[in-house]
Amino acid sequence: MQIGMIGLGKMGGNMAERLRRGGHDVVGYDRDPSISDVANLKELVDRLQAPRAVWVMVPAGAPTQATVEQLGELLSPGDIVIDGGNSHYLDDRKHGEELGARGVGFVDCGVSGGVWGLQNGYALMTGGSDEDVRRLMPIFETLKPEEGGFVHAGGIGAGHFAKMVHNGIEYGMMQAFAEGWELLEASDVVTDVAGSFKSWRNGTVIRSWLLDLLVRALDEDPGLAELKGYAQDSGEGRWTVQAAVDHAVPLPVITAALYARFASRQDDSPAMKVVAALRNQFGGHAVTAKEGQVAKGADAPGADVVPPAEADR
Amino acid sequence: MQIGMIGLGKMGGNMAERLRRGGHDVVGYDRDPSISDVANLKELVDRLQAPRAVWVMVPAGAPTQATVEQLGELLSPGDIVIDGGNSHYLDDRKHGEELGARGVGFVDCGVSGGVWGLQNGYALMTGGSDEDVRRLMPIFETLKPEEGGFVHAGGIGAGHFAKMVHNGIEYGMMQAFAEGWELLEASDVVTDVAGSFKSWRNGTVIRSWLLDLLVRALDEDPGLAELKGYAQDSGEGRWTVQAAVDHAVPLPVITAALYARFASRQDDSPAMKVVAALRNQFGGHAVTAKEGQVAKGADAPGADVVPPAEADR
Amino acid sequence: MQIGMIGLGKMGGNMAERLRRGGHDVVGYDRDPSISDVANLKELVDRLQAPRAVWVMVPAGAPTQATVEQLGELLSPGDIVIDGGNSHYLDDRKHGEELGARGVGFVDCGVSGGVWGLQNGYALMTGGSDEDVRRLMPIFETLKPEEGGFVHAGGIGAGHFAKMVHNGIEYGMMQAFAEGWELLEASDVVTDVAGSFKSWRNGTVIRSWLLDLLVRALDEDPGLAELKGYAQDSGEGRWTVQAAVDHAVPLPVITAALYARFASRQDDSPAMKVVAALRNQFGGHAVTAKEGQVAKGADAPGADVVPPAEADR
Amino acid sequence: MQIGMIGLGKMGGNMAERLRRGGHDVVGYDRDPSISDVANLKELVDRLQAPRAVWVMVPAGAPTQATVEQLGELLSPGDIVIDGGNSHYLDDRKHGEELGARGVGFVDCGVSGGVWGLQNGYALMTGGSDEDVRRLMPIFETLKPEEGGFVHAGGIGAGHFAKMVHNGIEYGMMQAFAEGWELLEASDVVTDVAGSFKSWRNGTVIRSWLLDLLVRALDEDPGLAELKGYAQDSGEGRWTVQAAVDHAVPLPVITAALYARFASRQDDSPAMKVVAALRNQFGGHAVTAKEGQVAKGADAPGADVVPPAEADR
Repeated sequence: MQIGMIGLGKMGGNMAERLRRGGHDVVGYDRDPSISDVANLKELVDRLQAPRAVWVMVPAGAPTQATVEQLGELLSPGDIVIDGGNSHYLDDRKHGEELGARGVGFVDCGVSGGVWGLQNGYALMTGGSDEDVRRLMPIFETLKPEEGGFVHAGGIGAGHFAKMVHNGIEYGMMQAFAEGWELLEASDVVTDVAGSFKSWRNGTVIRSWLLDLLVRALDEDPGLAELKGYAQDSGEGRWTVQAAVDHAVPLPVITAALYARFASRQDDSPAMKVVAALRNQFGGHAVTAKEGQVAKGADAPGADVVPPAEADR
Repeated sequence: MQIGMIGLGKMGGNMAERLRRGGHDVVGYDRDPSISDVANLKELVDRLQAPRAVWVMVPAGAPTQATVEQLGELLSPGDIVIDGGNSHYLDDRKHGEELGARGVGFVDCGVSGGVWGLQNGYALMTGGSDEDVRRLMPIFETLKPEEGGFVHAGGIGAGHFAKMVHNGIEYGMMQAFAEGWELLEASDVVTDVAGSFKSWRNGTVIRSWLLDLLVRALDEDPGLAELKGYAQDSGEGRWTVQAAVDHAVPLPVITAALYARFASRQDDSPAMKVVAALRNQFGGHAVTAKEGQVAKGADAPGADVVPPAEADR
Repeated sequence: MQIGMIGLGKMGGNMAERLRRGGHDVVGYDRDPSISDVANLKELVDRLQAPRAVWVMVPAGAPTQATVEQLGELLSPGDIVIDGGNSHYLDDRKHGEELGARGVGFVDCGVSGGVWGLQNGYALMTGGSDEDVRRLMPIFETLKPEEGGFVHAGGIGAGHFAKMVHNGIEYGMMQAFAEGWELLEASDVVTDVAGSFKSWRNGTVIRSWLLDLLVRALDEDPGLAELKGYAQDSGEGRWTVQAAVDHAVPLPVITAALYARFASRQDDSPAMKVVAALRNQFGGHAVTAKEGQVAKGADAPGADVVPPAEADR
Repeated sequence: MQIGMIGLGKMGGNMAERLRRGGHDVVGYDRDPSISDVANLKELVDRLQAPRAVWVMVPAGAPTQATVEQLGELLSPGDIVIDGGNSHYLDDRKHGEELGARGVGFVDCGVSGGVWGLQNGYALMTGGSDEDVRRLMPIFETLKPEEGGFVHAGGIGAGHFAKMVHNGIEYGMMQAFAEGWELLEASDVVTDVAGSFKSWRNGTVIRSWLLDLLVRALDEDPGLAELKGYAQDSGEGRWTVQAAVDHAVPLPVITAALYARFASRQDDSPAMKVVAALRNQFGGHAVTAKEGQVAKGADAPGADVVPPAEADR
């Protein structure tokens, strides 16, 4: 079928290519004219026959918002917009309402697959009406992997919500491997740590694509000596925790994984300054006391982390 | 090569079978005479030609301890004992020293593979001297999966330590999936939760054997309605946390996963009674205060979780 | 000075009373006419001389929003609105802007003190311009405790933000006591658990008002047998975590305390059903395997939580 | 009454002094002869009249162990040893048995109070038989604060167990304050952070001795600029977590506080290197892929943290 693709970067470009290989008619727009089929969004819309399908593959937030707004003005009732970026599910709902008011359909689609997607297919998590999703199935069938990798998760927002939770799970899994690594490295018991990880790829409970990736990294740098323990977080990890708090759902593992990333980016921990300050007070006042200055107010009772005694038998 | 196998239960029995299929000469002992090749440990040792290899596959703790002690008395210098159970790595060291004092070698071997191991091979994590491990390689080669699944992790104890950490990682991964499930279920955004998990088996970052297992469980019981949210923990999860504390290694995710299991087994939380009691004090004293009984002690300042006001315009 | 008080419930009523005892001229409005000095907001505004100060002490969210909107229409440039409820700091900013556009000042004030505030004073955390806060100091001086208990924390929103963080800290402290209680109860080592808590009120590092409250609760119900381990959370705990995630600040303790409350309200844990389902798969497939049904697909490698062997010597 | 005090350091020396001021006859021994009343333990025992009471106030672990062993050889049936150091409760049980076999009593006593104890008294948590504790009450009465601060918590080990849990609670409380500080510092909402903490000393729910100490620290260094976010942990925090794991008690807050200290002492996080390595694999392979090298194996599906697209409208 015919589809417009807005945003021809690493993801959008490859998806357009996979769709073309699958026999679809793709009209691509990018702000870089050297890779764009049309000069602007208006021309893109003009080139597509109604009822149109336009896939938006631009950064979440303001760029997506602006694109959806422009499309709302250009498209006609019966057209559909697909947001394949990493938008927040509440933004999807807003976009769905705005477009819906003009008779334009909206489907959100969480996409996983990165650079291998062109060849192996993209995992797709979609949200929207049955009718809209059904109409787009030829597109989804071509984009997704040969087997599985597709879900119509629910109404508008459900696709990005499912993708968000997927990423939250990913955070927890990554951190689980990370903690196992640290414990093995810190102890002197296991001397072949990288070899242990490699051996786990076969026959164990924890075999997984993430473990495969980690072993690749270890093949390149067995002790991870080239790396700093510093990790960014994508917005989706934060959104997962905030959605959990909104729904009163305890997520101790996913949250701990997010917090570990936050902490990894600090040169120094302001919180631990407070702990250090308190510990100083325990001990520092000891010195003061020795000089007889505690007598006055002395409302303060005891500190107890002072070692019980220095002298012994 | 020739090997004695002590404990012919689900694991030991299958391992003996896989070894026999691989051409090894296995003499098995089990306290159940109907499946045992010999009447007792002495007979087992007598049936093996020196230098002997004896694989102990009995429950960790007292049974393993007793078996190792008996073997120490029966075996000769140059023989090797392999502990394939789930022993603590510090027990391995003790066993290694006890046997070593008699000239008997010791190798610990963490085994993963469960009921599929007979067919697909067992993941093996071994600890011991290079010489002892090398001597046993024909056995390990037959037991392990065709590809990978074996590591000589370090000295005595390293095999069980690596297996312990593997299980700790497994705890974290399981809990990550579990939390994702709960958030999807708790929100009303995604309506096809089971379908979302199924779709993740292909093309995503979190694809893994645990996800495969979870999808099987969902195929049998899509809403997990038949289950209670109650989970036991094996000792290895606890040992992982305790080893981390011993080594001053922070394991927030693995520990949170362990604690979630502890909490799942409580009918009521004693800790949360204290929180409830404190909250009652905030409010309960409000009532008392209204009756003018606060005047006496009244060293207590304010409670602040009382809603600020009931009345409005 | 003269002040209008909107909302004469447990908090607003007592605060009005404390202000009157301090010599201020308070005009109170409540939707309950039996305790209200005026019939409606318009009459309240008419009764006050410009420049007016009006303290809003109604529930956060819609009631506060509606009250502030009405006041915006009724008040004159130079008047000031104080929001003493538990509003979110971002709502404060919105209210500040809305009123500011009309020349009306806005000060947010987090209030702690509960039912003891009438007698002992209320801890006040304020946000707003220097000028507005300075103008209201006679009111704050009367409301606050004799010593301390007041801060001008920053611009609009800072008062409620400080109060929010105060409550977050409170969550962590309450949970710390709660966990200590549970560990003492669970072990058989300490037989006088309540007595231990009582003894800690003097001479220890953890003496605190929360400990005093807990001891009161234990005096009434030494084993907390009357209570269920079930705890609500006020919105401020959630806001604290969400603000932390917004600012990339790790709050492991405060978040764990919040999650413990979430979990306390669940009859069954959906997350732990997933863990149970996975564990069932480990074991359940064992049974299946025994019946020879694993042969077909058999892509699944091993389960490893099956005890290593049942048999021993 | 008469008592021997072994170890006359900061704690033991002050306790001996407080006992003397209370009218007791204290014979002190320290390995520093300049402050010791006797030359060795034998002379100490000889100077005391049977039935003797000997208070051991030396570092936990080997020094306490050695002292208890020597006392076991020197003392007579009916004498009592008190261990006032920070021993593990399981060591207490061992010491109790060893001494008990010789007819010598044993009481463990967790002591809190630091340098203020001399003046204000020491909080005492004791474990032992009713008879032994009763016999020592004159000593305890003098050492403890005027009001409260004493508990006979249970049998041998209960005193140190109660003290251990006290310290665990302390960890959680300190971290709660620390996290509140960090959130206030990280946001730009509250501009007077130190002032907010100061204001909380009166009229709030979180007023406590730890807050008093923190305010003292802030008076000396308002931004804590002189400090590094680095905190040691005493053994008791670790023991608390390990005891919890032994008893299957979830301690999320206390454990998080302990882990925060562990992490504060790391220059770089090995765990976060793994997370960084995995994230590199997501992105790094993108580069590789661009050079057409993914085609061969390509069993690896997608990475999903690659931003969806760089281009937009």
